[in-house]
Amino acid sequence: MKKRNAIVGQSGGPTAVINSSLYGVIIEAKRYEEIGTVFGMIHGIEGVLKDELIDLFEETGETLNWLTYTPGAALGGCRYMLKSTDPDDEDIKRIFSVFERYNIGYFFYIGGNDSMDTANKIYEAARKIGYELSVIGIPKTIDNDLPETHHCPGFGSAAKYVATSVKEAGLHTESMYTSEPISILTTVGRNTGWLPASSILAKGSKRDAPHLVYLPEMPFSKEQFLKDVEKIHKEVGGVFIVTGEGLIDEKGKYVGVSESKVALDAFGHPELGSVGEYLKIMIEKELKLHTRTIKLDICQQSAMHFASIRDRDDAILVGKTAVKIAIDGNSGVMITLEEEKGKTGATSLSNVANIERKMPRDLLNKERSLPSEKYIDYVKPLIEGEVKIPIADGLPEYRRLKGR
Amino acid sequence: MKKRNAIVGQSGGPTAVINSSLYGVIIEAKRYEEIGTVFGMIHGIEGVLKDELIDLFEETGETLNWLTYTPGAALGGCRYMLKSTDPDDEDIKRIFSVFERYNIGYFFYIGGNDSMDTANKIYEAARKIGYELSVIGIPKTIDNDLPETHHCPGFGSAAKYVATSVKEAGLHTESMYTSEPISILTTVGRNTGWLPASSILAKGSKRDAPHLVYLPEMPFSKEQFLKDVEKIHKEVGGVFIVTGEGLIDEKGKYVGVSESKVALDAFGHPELGSVGEYLKIMIEKELKLHTRTIKLDICQQSAMHFASIRDRDDAILVGKTAVKIAIDGNSGVMITLEEEKGKTGATSLSNVANIERKMPRDLLNKERSLPSEKYIDYVKPLIEGEVKIPIADGLPEYRRLKGR
Repeated sequence: MKKRNAIVGQSGGPTAVINSSLYGVIIEAKRYEEIGTVFGMIHGIEGVLKDELIDLFEETGETLNWLTYTPGAALGGCRYMLKSTDPDDEDIKRIFSVFERYNIGYFFYIGGNDSMDTANKIYEAARKIGYELSVIGIPKTIDNDLPETHHCPGFGSAAKYVATSVKEAGLHTESMYTSEPISILTTVGRNTGWLPASSILAKGSKRDAPHLVYLPEMPFSKEQFLKDVEKIHKEVGGVFIVTGEGLIDEKGKYVGVSESKVALDAFGHPELGSVGEYLKIMIEKELKLHTRTIKLDICQQSAMHFASIRDRDDAILVGKTAVKIAIDGNSGVMITLEEEKGKTGATSLSNVANIERKMPRDLLNKERSLPSEKYIDYVKPLIEGEVKIPIADGLPEYRRLKGR
Repeated sequence: MKKRNAIVGQSGGPTAVINSSLYGVIIEAKRYEEIGTVFGMIHGIEGVLKDELIDLFEETGETLNWLTYTPGAALGGCRYMLKSTDPDDEDIKRIFSVFERYNIGYFFYIGGNDSMDTANKIYEAARKIGYELSVIGIPKTIDNDLPETHHCPGFGSAAKYVATSVKEAGLHTESMYTSEPISILTTVGRNTGWLPASSILAKGSKRDAPHLVYLPEMPFSKEQFLKDVEKIHKEVGGVFIVTGEGLIDEKGKYVGVSESKVALDAFGHPELGSVGEYLKIMIEKELKLHTRTIKLDICQQSAMHFASIRDRDDAILVGKTAVKIAIDGNSGVMITLEEEKGKTGATSLSNVANIERKMPRDLLNKERSLPSEKYIDYVKPLIEGEVKIPIADGLPEYRRLKGR
């Protein structure tokens, strides 16, 4: 038996449970004699390029347990994209020289659709070079927009936090209908509505927030929007609106992101998040109704204090499973989750790299104005249970890896 | 013994525990034969003006228990200000005619400094008219800016939520230092820094968020701000900034609120909250560093899912105490809290109406760049313990009053 080392990285934005997948990889890797140690990439593939790696088998069991409770990416995330799979590409040459030096035989990459492109490029490059490497993608995204998997680790906890926040802020808003009748909460989720749609879980009756939900899958019309707000305001006395950050208007443009302001993030995507402010100005100008805005932003990716047990367990499971199937001789695949808790599958990395899964039509109601009952059935099991976290002096206790 | 009725209202913006004060009033009132029933004003004093009252003794014990777990203002809040104490004023005439009709002998008003002005005006008007009325103010504000009291119910839970969010979002930001190195979290708190300062509880070491905290009590200089951000970015690799919404520049103007945009809220205050976006644009333009913004807004006033037990208990206590001292024959006072848990006092309503308590100089460090150790000692006991809330299907369960 040839003993080789593994390497693991976290890529893209973290989730509340991304460290649980890291935990799964390390714990499972310790079970196999084929694996010498697991190196952690500091800031994903950037850590390989800069030769910034730490030996994760040197972390104590206690520290490893903390990974299942601590938000952020313990190794650091990144938004670095590989440009090529060409063996002569500078990045590729550097990466494989580091792999050789550290005797890397297993490459685990925890991330979303952009990060699966990185994993896929490493997989392709290894084949071209003839370097023996098992490349396994481990799904992670609060956007829930990876194809081929029933759901994505990270999404359940974010959905639980968004729905809870809407339930609470909704009751607050209702209290203030006579002076501040409108609230708009903007979620992340980029071009898909999975996360903003989860706010529907807060709604038990017509009076409950959210009253209106806008998703990128629903073409946005300013006229219809103002009509919707006016109607609910008349019927209920106030309106709680939830919107995804990436609404698209009838001309196919992002709503509330002016052409001149389309800043690009490091992955080359336009910077979103201003739609709530845009809708507020529209409501105050056209309907003369006082409007508040909420932008939870990265709190959605890190609210470990109210994270979902199902989500945490899924995250550990995909980490462990990645190691298992690598040992079984697989490569070039991403682990997938099935509806049933504890069941996994796998799909080719090329099926998921850079591909966004939109919400299918049947997860919206007939009028395409709210998520459907089918969506509610889909998301409910994913937010179940509350992860118990250690608390000291009234605040959650979180820790870093020893090597960080 | 003359049996008379009590009336209670919630005013201003709600807090996570404002309903606990309402609970305290109802539960305590039931103990006295002097009190016939307690009427609830729907949307504070607006409910009196519109004769929209509900009988709170008709609520079941189970519903009353829910008040100690449910955010928002169960009766509805308001931002209506009385203009006069003149017996001939239309509002005053209407209010006292309703009081007479409902045989009101006790007036309890749960609110902040604006609401205490309403209570004080009612008290003054009653004296002028010769109407026998006990008027008691019950403190409530997440801003913690009421004078004469050691702290305010609502503040502890908001501080706990802000510090927790900063701890979590801080670890997230740290993960992303190589691509998205700066985060700015804007809190509410108006012209005082009590709430944004609480984020300091998240900080255990130099690496931890928050790295920079800006409060209305610290004069804001754009040049110093950019220097601060650059310095920390160089030293730590990234910067987590917390700012109050009401920063004041060297000319005494609100930072990030353009003259033309000074929208007024219903209490006549300028609308704040855009300072984070303003600082983001400044950093991205001057320092070329990618910056994210978080605006928790009303989630700070309603995050019951991680509220402080001390805060909840304080809120119940001030409600109960208000009834006790009213029965003892007092009027024209607001209940105050002392440092020691369970101890209360009282102060004249005229001492608190419309007065904002700023953070004293010794609660900031020597450089006036961070809250001091003394501030930390002050706030720590207020965030202790986590209120257990009923959870169903992974989400908190909240309820409305039967009469609503």
